[in-house]
Amino acid sequence: MIDIIALRRDLHKYPELGFTEFRTAAKVVQMLTELGYRVTYGKDAIDDTSRRGLPKPEVLEDAYQRAIDEGADPAIVQQMRGGFTAVVAELQGEQEGPTTAFRFDMDALPIRESKSDKHIPQAGQFRSSHEGIMHACAHDGHTAIGLALAERLSNRKFPGKIRLLFQPAEEGVRGAYAMVGKGMLEQVDRLFCIHLGTGVPSGHVRGASAGFLATTKLEAHFTGVSSHAGATPEEGRNALLGASTALLNIHALPRFSTADTRINVGILEGGTGANIIPEHARMVIETRSTTEETNRELERRVRQIIEHSAAMHELSSMVEVIGGAVPIHCDMELAELVVQQTEGIAGFTHAEAISDGASLGSEDASYMIRRVQEQGGKATYMIIGSELPAPHHHPEFDIDEAVLAPAVELLERLARTR
Amino acid sequence: MIDIIALRRDLHKYPELGFTEFRTAAKVVQMLTELGYRVTYGKDAIDDTSRRGLPKPEVLEDAYQRAIDEGADPAIVQQMRGGFTAVVAELQGEQEGPTTAFRFDMDALPIRESKSDKHIPQAGQFRSSHEGIMHACAHDGHTAIGLALAERLSNRKFPGKIRLLFQPAEEGVRGAYAMVGKGMLEQVDRLFCIHLGTGVPSGHVRGASAGFLATTKLEAHFTGVSSHAGATPEEGRNALLGASTALLNIHALPRFSTADTRINVGILEGGTGANIIPEHARMVIETRSTTEETNRELERRVRQIIEHSAAMHELSSMVEVIGGAVPIHCDMELAELVVQQTEGIAGFTHAEAISDGASLGSEDASYMIRRVQEQGGKATYMIIGSELPAPHHHPEFDIDEAVLAPAVELLERLARTR
Amino acid sequence: MIDIIALRRDLHKYPELGFTEFRTAAKVVQMLTELGYRVTYGKDAIDDTSRRGLPKPEVLEDAYQRAIDEGADPAIVQQMRGGFTAVVAELQGEQEGPTTAFRFDMDALPIRESKSDKHIPQAGQFRSSHEGIMHACAHDGHTAIGLALAERLSNRKFPGKIRLLFQPAEEGVRGAYAMVGKGMLEQVDRLFCIHLGTGVPSGHVRGASAGFLATTKLEAHFTGVSSHAGATPEEGRNALLGASTALLNIHALPRFSTADTRINVGILEGGTGANIIPEHARMVIETRSTTEETNRELERRVRQIIEHSAAMHELSSMVEVIGGAVPIHCDMELAELVVQQTEGIAGFTHAEAISDGASLGSEDASYMIRRVQEQGGKATYMIIGSELPAPHHHPEFDIDEAVLAPAVELLERLARTR
Amino acid sequence: MIDIIALRRDLHKYPELGFTEFRTAAKVVQMLTELGYRVTYGKDAIDDTSRRGLPKPEVLEDAYQRAIDEGADPAIVQQMRGGFTAVVAELQGEQEGPTTAFRFDMDALPIRESKSDKHIPQAGQFRSSHEGIMHACAHDGHTAIGLALAERLSNRKFPGKIRLLFQPAEEGVRGAYAMVGKGMLEQVDRLFCIHLGTGVPSGHVRGASAGFLATTKLEAHFTGVSSHAGATPEEGRNALLGASTALLNIHALPRFSTADTRINVGILEGGTGANIIPEHARMVIETRSTTEETNRELERRVRQIIEHSAAMHELSSMVEVIGGAVPIHCDMELAELVVQQTEGIAGFTHAEAISDGASLGSEDASYMIRRVQEQGGKATYMIIGSELPAPHHHPEFDIDEAVLAPAVELLERLARTR
Repeated sequence: MIDIIALRRDLHKYPELGFTEFRTAAKVVQMLTELGYRVTYGKDAIDDTSRRGLPKPEVLEDAYQRAIDEGADPAIVQQMRGGFTAVVAELQGEQEGPTTAFRFDMDALPIRESKSDKHIPQAGQFRSSHEGIMHACAHDGHTAIGLALAERLSNRKFPGKIRLLFQPAEEGVRGAYAMVGKGMLEQVDRLFCIHLGTGVPSGHVRGASAGFLATTKLEAHFTGVSSHAGATPEEGRNALLGASTALLNIHALPRFSTADTRINVGILEGGTGANIIPEHARMVIETRSTTEETNRELERRVRQIIEHSAAMHELSSMVEVIGGAVPIHCDMELAELVVQQTEGIAGFTHAEAISDGASLGSEDASYMIRRVQEQGGKATYMIIGSELPAPHHHPEFDIDEAVLAPAVELLERLARTR
Repeated sequence: MIDIIALRRDLHKYPELGFTEFRTAAKVVQMLTELGYRVTYGKDAIDDTSRRGLPKPEVLEDAYQRAIDEGADPAIVQQMRGGFTAVVAELQGEQEGPTTAFRFDMDALPIRESKSDKHIPQAGQFRSSHEGIMHACAHDGHTAIGLALAERLSNRKFPGKIRLLFQPAEEGVRGAYAMVGKGMLEQVDRLFCIHLGTGVPSGHVRGASAGFLATTKLEAHFTGVSSHAGATPEEGRNALLGASTALLNIHALPRFSTADTRINVGILEGGTGANIIPEHARMVIETRSTTEETNRELERRVRQIIEHSAAMHELSSMVEVIGGAVPIHCDMELAELVVQQTEGIAGFTHAEAISDGASLGSEDASYMIRRVQEQGGKATYMIIGSELPAPHHHPEFDIDEAVLAPAVELLERLARTR
Repeated sequence: MIDIIALRRDLHKYPELGFTEFRTAAKVVQMLTELGYRVTYGKDAIDDTSRRGLPKPEVLEDAYQRAIDEGADPAIVQQMRGGFTAVVAELQGEQEGPTTAFRFDMDALPIRESKSDKHIPQAGQFRSSHEGIMHACAHDGHTAIGLALAERLSNRKFPGKIRLLFQPAEEGVRGAYAMVGKGMLEQVDRLFCIHLGTGVPSGHVRGASAGFLATTKLEAHFTGVSSHAGATPEEGRNALLGASTALLNIHALPRFSTADTRINVGILEGGTGANIIPEHARMVIETRSTTEETNRELERRVRQIIEHSAAMHELSSMVEVIGGAVPIHCDMELAELVVQQTEGIAGFTHAEAISDGASLGSEDASYMIRRVQEQGGKATYMIIGSELPAPHHHPEFDIDEAVLAPAVELLERLARTR
Repeated sequence: MIDIIALRRDLHKYPELGFTEFRTAAKVVQMLTELGYRVTYGKDAIDDTSRRGLPKPEVLEDAYQRAIDEGADPAIVQQMRGGFTAVVAELQGEQEGPTTAFRFDMDALPIRESKSDKHIPQAGQFRSSHEGIMHACAHDGHTAIGLALAERLSNRKFPGKIRLLFQPAEEGVRGAYAMVGKGMLEQVDRLFCIHLGTGVPSGHVRGASAGFLATTKLEAHFTGVSSHAGATPEEGRNALLGASTALLNIHALPRFSTADTRINVGILEGGTGANIIPEHARMVIETRSTTEETNRELERRVRQIIEHSAAMHELSSMVEVIGGAVPIHCDMELAELVVQQTEGIAGFTHAEAISDGASLGSEDASYMIRRVQEQGGKATYMIIGSELPAPHHHPEFDIDEAVLAPAVELLERLARTR
């Protein structure tokens, strides 16, 4: 039987960034196959061109080689080469029934993990061995829960069909869209997404979540002409003048009376030296809104500002979507089911249907939830509480491993309902 | 015989802004006609659509009525109604010879004249009677010199033909272009333009000037959509966001290695109230350069910035040329002639061919000079020195009236050369 | 007996802007005095230095003279000279009881009233005779209601004391603060504020309103050094560079997660001519928020941006509060009382306790309401519905005069409760 | 005898960036010591804290180790560890006479050298073996000339004293200032600085140069507070808003009538991710002017803009000088001496006193020249012409090696004059 804590610690020790989860996904494929699931992965599980914010080829390749060096099955990762790190597994139950899906995300964050002795992964010797990369958002726990659930359900004692979705690149809200694009959510009747922590204490469960915003992440490039700043400044076309103008005006877009909004230019970089008119600048922007429509309008206006900030200085510009999510509307019927099934599980003391904390974060599980609902299915985004020594995305983030087993128990019960 | 000091004081007391010199120009027409000149004026002396920076119709009309109230000949000003205040007079000399032209500008400035007792026009009771308008750049003196010259030459004792050009709207460099456009500089062999003062002391004469810049004055309008700033900010299209972006980026245009440049947004105004998204903004911009080509390139880039600063915020924009000048290149042959003719005139003690002070101002006589030179003629822009109690365009500006008579004498001599 | 429709039409025909309500206020003083009220006005009714956004002295004086020309009692308006146009009237009832106050605003807007034949004031010959000024927000109706109410209550058949507050300069949220500052809201037990229209149809009454935002209106001045843009640009200190930078950065202030916000630079104007580095710029800004605390933080950050945008270009800056309001929290007890008293009044068919329309406007009655509540009193801001042919602040705005009489009846009933 | 071409090729093959010229400088020390010079280097030849734009410690350390790996004498480079790569050598001549100094710069550029077969270093197998670093400005030639000159003069057949200055970090105008600061230019009577190429053809010599601008290179850091852009944007203090505002306003600083100016923000980078309010931004700025005074004024104003752009958004800021130069005014007496001594040198066909090409570049030899002149000495910046297949700082830049020997000959002759 899977030792869920050991499994989670192994995953924690080898964190991988979005679309480079080669070792993680290969392990998932291997375990699920051994458990008898019909496993789909690589280009069969995720749409090539719908992947957003894909790392550069050399980054993908380096991570690929590293995974092999660290023991990933070469035959399996070969299928994932180039960033096709999604895995979907299906199993037919003994009885007729609905198709129930569970979604787990697998990627880590570009954060240098703490070496403090108080930090349990450090003390317990499972701190990240990939310097500068860290599981600081509990996706290691999610993946471990998914695999332990798979084991529990491998006896097929459930109605209908089970589908387990292991998603790459949730950070940056990049991967779910492309799995939906490949049809991985078709014919799902019920979808359960989970997250550990998020401010909910250990022992508590929330059947549904509110407060997720629609969001778009954009990358913009401004390209002009470099020139010697002393000798011929007038021959240059200054990419940073265009980019700075865009930055100020993007932030100056109006508030909306129709919905709450957010806007941020998170990265700007350009230029090569003091005495050179900057030829190129890169900018990363994010828009958010409580409604998808307003978010779309914000994105439209951001694009317009970029285009004309560039043209004003005779620069060319290019904008690419590198991530996105839509708002989440959970089906309260499933949320109530979660509350009901929590009853009696050792380790869980409280359950509520909805977590009303307006987190104002974003989640690309939203695309999966929407696709299920579009087909008439039901979906929810549930929270498994966990004490946290530090906030999500913090170098000392860690989860309460005691909640992992009860979480598996709860999902198993949900899978057995109809 | 004309009392040139009295005449100058009369003109000083009734100053008129560019294109509204109805009283001044009517007096010029009347005196020149009486002296036997063939006088062309109104729509015959200036091209309608080439006039730049024309005041609004109601301003033109108010000034027109005021001129009549102040005694302008209604039959004459009627021909000038709507801002056609240019006058050109010709006289044929006794002998064959070249066509020699002299140019005098007539307009005043929107400056409130000093009431200080030390200010001679105040003490001498010829301070401006048009509150807020003032002859603070010596054009009253120029016009008086022109009329006194006309009287001296009315005996026809000169070779060839004399053409006297009385120009409206030099301030803002607006009027000369439209007189050239009407053909008023055709067939001129020699053109003398004069200016009093400009830092040259009384008794000194300069035969030519350097340092005039090419310039363009533009007026831009940004039009968006107003909206209630509290209730529906997203429905507005904010003209001031576009205009402020343009303003910063216009100033941020590069220095040129090819020529010295200047750039200024001199006026920006927009919006109607604290709680209204501003629908409209107006901006006045000026570019300058030591070369016409670089000035043209600057203008091109300013227009591009305006267009895209507007489009960025979904505004429409409109840009209009309201003034302009080209650099002046004086013919040194004429400058030497000036120096030579100065010899022996009482009141003049020094004469030099060229004034090298890089004034970095602009003058639309430049269009007249260029047109004459294009036809193979010669032209110069000469300076008659005058002590000044305060700089040009200052509320206490005044000229040394003692230089007026020697200036007339000098121009008369020049007219009598061939 | 007062003809309320004729009275409203008279007020409509002679609209006066904030702090220049000399004719209106003098009429109010005269009528209230005749009805036996103890009337306080002029400097006794409004605090001099707390008045925000006061017009320039010459504007105040012109309006003062106009009021006298139009028949205002010179002895009365003399007390108001300089913009002290608040009026407060008190009457003691027959029995013991609470002090009940009613507030009416008197000022008009800088809008040119429609001359369309469909516009009833035009057809009915009571269109504004002050060109460019218009009662386009129903304050003429409010004042008429207040005077008719005063007449009804002059028989003293009510418990306690009645206080009638006639406020200047509600537009721009400028006048109420200074009346509170003068103590005009002390010892009030119940305060009823009213507004006609606001989207509520004729026959409907709302006992209370939500959705008013905290707001601050600021006027900023940037002062630099003018200079000739061609000759010595480096000697200038460009006020428009500072102001444009402030404008962009003010709009770029962050959204808040703590409250909804609004921000607007409604006016920017500076500079005098194309060839002059602009010496001065003026800017009008407004902040709003659903909470007073967030509005205060926004104001603080706006001030900081202005200060440093100026200092960056070696300009001086000055910021002045020209208006402001706080959010309104109505006492539902009074709202219920309004609903209850509406019962049976001819002309009113519906009454609800609260109007939930998030208007996202602002009202300086909020200062009065807060002052009353601070002392333990109760207050509400009620709406008397009225069909409107065009929105508030529109040139064709007009009210349904049929609702005036029922409104008076309702207020009278409220005054008679205890 | 030194094979100057082989020596130059060796230096070319191992290019080192400013302050990391460990291998180059160690070779210089070794050769000069062997030739009998009194050699000063390391902390004795350059002032620690006056070094501008010093690379990060790890960069210095990596380059240090590389130099050792590539055969640099550990005992020598040990003295240079941490970026003390200046070398000064002196030799006393046989007779009494002046102290004559020659200055040679040693550093390379961060440019990837061409691999084209047409590129002689590639064909000749001395292309850079430090990928991304290249001698693309002829400093390899300068250093080779300096060493060959040292050999020629080692017989002491010259009057007075010879001082050879081998300078690090000319690129970015960083190193000379700190050598002056250490007193390396004290008691110099004559200083000859040289440069190869610069548009002058092979066979030509210029005794002096004009057109060098005063310049300052600044690095600015903006530090705010990061925050989640969705959850709590108002808690962030956005470093990129401050930096972009500074960038636009720095470019918008006025043109000067007192001198020609240049301004450039060459690098801006900040932020870490789409959903994080950027905490930090870095900016590299350069100012230039034909006069040192105007450059100083520009620098002052840039600093002011940075300070207040930061303060406006509650950021802290820090500005550091990372490079600088003053204008160069060559002594024509030395220039004439150069012309005279060129006479008869095989390989030189033309010599002129001055190169008037307004290059509008900058050179930190200017600090050395000024220091010499302050003490009453003479100095010049001479050009040795060289055909160039591509411009300076270009990946295919190369020098005409045929000019190296004549250059040594000329310098030797100059050293032998008094």
